[in-house]
Amino acid sequence: MIELDQTHDPKLTSWVASANGHADFPIQNLPLGIFSPGGATPRAGVAIGDAILDLRAVLDGGLLSGSAERAAQAARGNDLNNLLALGAGPRRALRQAVSNLLAEASSLRSRVEPLLYKASDCLLDLPARIGDYTDFYVGIHHATTVGKLFRPDNPLLPNYKYVPIGYHGRASSVRPSGIPLIRPLGQAKRPEAETPTFGPSTRLDYELELGVWVGPGNELGVPIGISAAADHLAGLCLLNDWSARDIQAWEYQPLGPFLAKNFATTISPWIVTAEALAPFRIAQPPRPAGDPTPLPYLTDAADQAEGAFDIELEVLLTTAEMRARGLTAHPLARSNALHMYWTAAQMITHHTSNGCNLRPGDLLGTGTISGPGQDGCGSLLEASQGGKNPIRLETGEERHFLEDGDEVLLRGRCRREGFAPIGFGECRAVIRPAL
Amino acid sequence: MIELDQTHDPKLTSWVASANGHADFPIQNLPLGIFSPGGATPRAGVAIGDAILDLRAVLDGGLLSGSAERAAQAARGNDLNNLLALGAGPRRALRQAVSNLLAEASSLRSRVEPLLYKASDCLLDLPARIGDYTDFYVGIHHATTVGKLFRPDNPLLPNYKYVPIGYHGRASSVRPSGIPLIRPLGQAKRPEAETPTFGPSTRLDYELELGVWVGPGNELGVPIGISAAADHLAGLCLLNDWSARDIQAWEYQPLGPFLAKNFATTISPWIVTAEALAPFRIAQPPRPAGDPTPLPYLTDAADQAEGAFDIELEVLLTTAEMRARGLTAHPLARSNALHMYWTAAQMITHHTSNGCNLRPGDLLGTGTISGPGQDGCGSLLEASQGGKNPIRLETGEERHFLEDGDEVLLRGRCRREGFAPIGFGECRAVIRPAL
Repeated sequence: MIELDQTHDPKLTSWVASANGHADFPIQNLPLGIFSPGGATPRAGVAIGDAILDLRAVLDGGLLSGSAERAAQAARGNDLNNLLALGAGPRRALRQAVSNLLAEASSLRSRVEPLLYKASDCLLDLPARIGDYTDFYVGIHHATTVGKLFRPDNPLLPNYKYVPIGYHGRASSVRPSGIPLIRPLGQAKRPEAETPTFGPSTRLDYELELGVWVGPGNELGVPIGISAAADHLAGLCLLNDWSARDIQAWEYQPLGPFLAKNFATTISPWIVTAEALAPFRIAQPPRPAGDPTPLPYLTDAADQAEGAFDIELEVLLTTAEMRARGLTAHPLARSNALHMYWTAAQMITHHTSNGCNLRPGDLLGTGTISGPGQDGCGSLLEASQGGKNPIRLETGEERHFLEDGDEVLLRGRCRREGFAPIGFGECRAVIRPAL
Repeated sequence: MIELDQTHDPKLTSWVASANGHADFPIQNLPLGIFSPGGATPRAGVAIGDAILDLRAVLDGGLLSGSAERAAQAARGNDLNNLLALGAGPRRALRQAVSNLLAEASSLRSRVEPLLYKASDCLLDLPARIGDYTDFYVGIHHATTVGKLFRPDNPLLPNYKYVPIGYHGRASSVRPSGIPLIRPLGQAKRPEAETPTFGPSTRLDYELELGVWVGPGNELGVPIGISAAADHLAGLCLLNDWSARDIQAWEYQPLGPFLAKNFATTISPWIVTAEALAPFRIAQPPRPAGDPTPLPYLTDAADQAEGAFDIELEVLLTTAEMRARGLTAHPLARSNALHMYWTAAQMITHHTSNGCNLRPGDLLGTGTISGPGQDGCGSLLEASQGGKNPIRLETGEERHFLEDGDEVLLRGRCRREGFAPIGFGECRAVIRPAL
């Protein structure tokens, strides 16, 4: 299933100087997105170092042919949905062609160089129209730590190790990195109060997640079997599932989170493709002794052998005071995508097992991917133990939950001996006061 | 807020003979939809009696002007989203213009008549691209009856009378009336079993709901206040929120229903507009003594005075055996939209109170609208008391839950002294065996 080719060669360099050794976007990554240069119209692009390659201009310049040209044609509008619908073949051909154009040895540099924009001069948009957004709950350390706050002796519910638990989120409020977050208003009931009150959330939180971009998808009524599921994973992004814990606690019974989550979801705007991630796929970590074997519809040898991703994840916090004093961001958490109890393929297969249809450009969140221990907490709910023990910052400030002016930044990086490291770019947003 | 005009005149008749006295679509209704005549491309239409008026052809024929023309222009594509975005003014102008064209007294009959299609020759599509679908839980008899199955002494959770409880559903699997339903597969755990199994759902159910079509909607971060909320209700439809109770019971903790619901949602394909429904808006029934007053953000005098809808609702069942024997449908339940504990305006305002954005063409389900008593059960879960006491049919058949070959039909009718009755058309689907 995993195909490595010369686009993954760690010795490959680009004539785009900033790409060589770039923490996120060396020539081995080539993520796909939608960007607007200056005030111009949105279009498809490929990130390369500190620059963005205008894919439409590459197409119009006659620099592509065959499947790569077909892929770029599909991306000719202002979203990538039609490209995602094509699946891995054309996407891989496009990757190969763009890699050739940007490689140090390219004979076409003079024709390609005018089609680059400085990334700092561009606005990044969502890469696709998200038809539906689903959020899972596959981070087992998160599920366990949060469960302990409510059920100290029995943190995980009986279904957790059988069912990749998920729920539907809100597609309309997903925003790319950089769009500020407005603190939501909502109903909450304080423990000591008789009745709820309405006002700004006082327990605003982040959640460290990955987003899975859906490729071709399926027709209604036709499930995607586990052995085919990886073909429907087009790529990944970082995802911050902002959460208002006070609203959540009051509203979530019996139908789950609603207004506590749907006021905003921030994602990194680049689709890091399944092809770019191929070197970083590894075996699913073994289930702890005594855990049940997944049911047959969720079991596949290839998925067990290479269905997990080794992606280092990080959360950084900058407060208004830290910015004023010129301090660097405070690391809130470090984790890794290996702490997912279910693979992305298992999420896709479970989601469609009842016939539910996924469409190209749908987004699946993993749920909070916490690591073990205090420095792995993928949310402040976990880090502050339900708001009881605040985080202390270098400025002397404390945080039970997020304050106005705080900026949360998620980072993701893949490293493996023998391969060039790649990253996801930024997933950041600053919190503005409630209206 | 409620404006009645000559389009509501009960004495108004149409030169389309089948419209006069039509149970659903007299000239006082004029619902909007998307239809395909024969094998032709989908387009906007207006139901009138047993016919459909081709709105695009009316526009192209130069039969509209002013705001009505602008509204029809917005509906020129294959969905009504842009028309819904315009809000009530242009929609009302279009209604007035179409009413004039179809009225007995119209001088333009000879130009309009060629633009009609027999409804039985047409396919009905979804009227809009549904960006997000949210399902509420405002039927208090349903919430109480279902709650009793789990908590006999305390059926309603403490938040119910403060929060219009809702959750996100799946937009991709909403289908218009007539599309068969494939019985879903899924995980379930029988009470006596140690572990779950995967297979066809054995507790397949319907849910009797109304759907609210969202009009203009709001920008992210800008709530819709309760006094403005009615302006965002473009119209209503019938909605069957198919549910697999066995899957639901096993999966729904802690994040709510997911695969138990997202395999299909069937709606009646016509948008019965807010204008057509104006005569049937009445005061919210008073809350039972002792119930809390809604919080101020959900309270509005006009909404209390005329925010509820008097819509009679009905569920009918036909089994394969009943069809084979030529028997008429069995009435499973009768209810009324008055059994909503929260109004549509309260649903809209609550949904956006945290800044969440609604977009034109979004769909909000009300949740199951059961009436009081056994013949008001809006789901078989209620009617069979959790599958314990089966329904008996004229054929001698029994139903704990739905069987393959069963067809469920929802109906909705508005009646008021001094006005022409109007209806919603059909919301039906037959159940096919699991794959």
